[in-house]
Amino acid sequence: MSEKDLLITDKTKLVRTPERASFDRKSAYEIIDDTPMCHVSYLINGEPYITPTLQWRFGDDFYWHGSSASRFLRSIVDNPVAINVMILDGLVLARSGMHHSANYRSVTLFGKARKIDEEEKEIQLERFVDNLLPGRWNSLRKINNQEVKATTVFTIPIDEASVKIRTGGPQDDDEDYQLPIWAGVIPIKQVTGSPIPDERNLPGVAIPNHVNDYKFR
Amino acid sequence: MSEKDLLITDKTKLVRTPERASFDRKSAYEIIDDTPMCHVSYLINGEPYITPTLQWRFGDDFYWHGSSASRFLRSIVDNPVAINVMILDGLVLARSGMHHSANYRSVTLFGKARKIDEEEKEIQLERFVDNLLPGRWNSLRKINNQEVKATTVFTIPIDEASVKIRTGGPQDDDEDYQLPIWAGVIPIKQVTGSPIPDERNLPGVAIPNHVNDYKFR
Repeated sequence: MSEKDLLITDKTKLVRTPERASFDRKSAYEIIDDTPMCHVSYLINGEPYITPTLQWRFGDDFYWHGSSASRFLRSIVDNPVAINVMILDGLVLARSGMHHSANYRSVTLFGKARKIDEEEKEIQLERFVDNLLPGRWNSLRKINNQEVKATTVFTIPIDEASVKIRTGGPQDDDEDYQLPIWAGVIPIKQVTGSPIPDERNLPGVAIPNHVNDYKFR
Repeated sequence: MSEKDLLITDKTKLVRTPERASFDRKSAYEIIDDTPMCHVSYLINGEPYITPTLQWRFGDDFYWHGSSASRFLRSIVDNPVAINVMILDGLVLARSGMHHSANYRSVTLFGKARKIDEEEKEIQLERFVDNLLPGRWNSLRKINNQEVKATTVFTIPIDEASVKIRTGGPQDDDEDYQLPIWAGVIPIKQVTGSPIPDERNLPGVAIPNHVNDYKFR
């Protein structure tokens, strides 16, 4: 892991609520590693688009992938993107409508989307699967050249980025604390259920540890 | 609810996996109503930005809000935005790396962000709180003019939009079904925990029903 903090730029500096902001690389990595999804913001013909997609991190770089035929991926080659990874942790209920809020952990990244070269693609896809489910890649039918070709992998360095975190209870106006109104937090988290085996699994094929062990941190 | 389907345009048509797409208004509304968060993609100086924020729906319109001082909200007045609301339902584990996927329900909306007029703002903020927690608004300290002024509310009509849903198990290549590899789905859902009362709640203030009843559908 790079020892450098994330970069404060015109894009990443937090204009409001700077007390929720940080440029701490470790916090950013924890959030990215804690949930598999991200949202990518990008342009087509100068207009904003948005696509949710699976993501992964390796070292100081951020990755996502998709079909080489996708309009989304064809549009972003060497173009600027903004990416957000967010975990909703709760609803914050205050004594006034004004101070209702959400608890969350969020990372926003900026960068030019770089397409991973053909030779490097397979190793990145392996990292994607094994990041999510350690050891799964080697248990699978080997990926073939046609499949590698049909998949595009993108990356941006994790540098121009910021972390925004809100935790704890409501922050009401001083005089509102005397009101008999219930205030507090409704905690929210993502959880996994019991794995559902595919009905076409061969008899005797047991659920592997990497499936049983999967959980959100 | 409008009887019209969502609009198929160059922006909303699904180029790939059209079998996952729909332009069904009812499905879109169910997804929007099932989770409180969205991601907004927008431009500043021609470059893409992204912000996660709380959202709500009233009738055929989509709403979000924030501080009037926010750079995000000042940038989008009468400008095009793309918004995504997404619920992750599971990880789909196939017999090949290629066919790994996610189950999800997602709505993408396009439109020009219209700022709600001063007079209409308070009623929209009431709808926001009561959509989330029916009846809460009237239990709160009344919002004052300064707070209404400090808040900006935006809307787009739910018209140019598309729904994308993936459900079910993996879709492997025919010959891969003979392999002794565990395939299936790890279900994922958002759940709420027990409400955490603010430590400064007055003695005897009970948890209201709108808090106990809150859950993801």
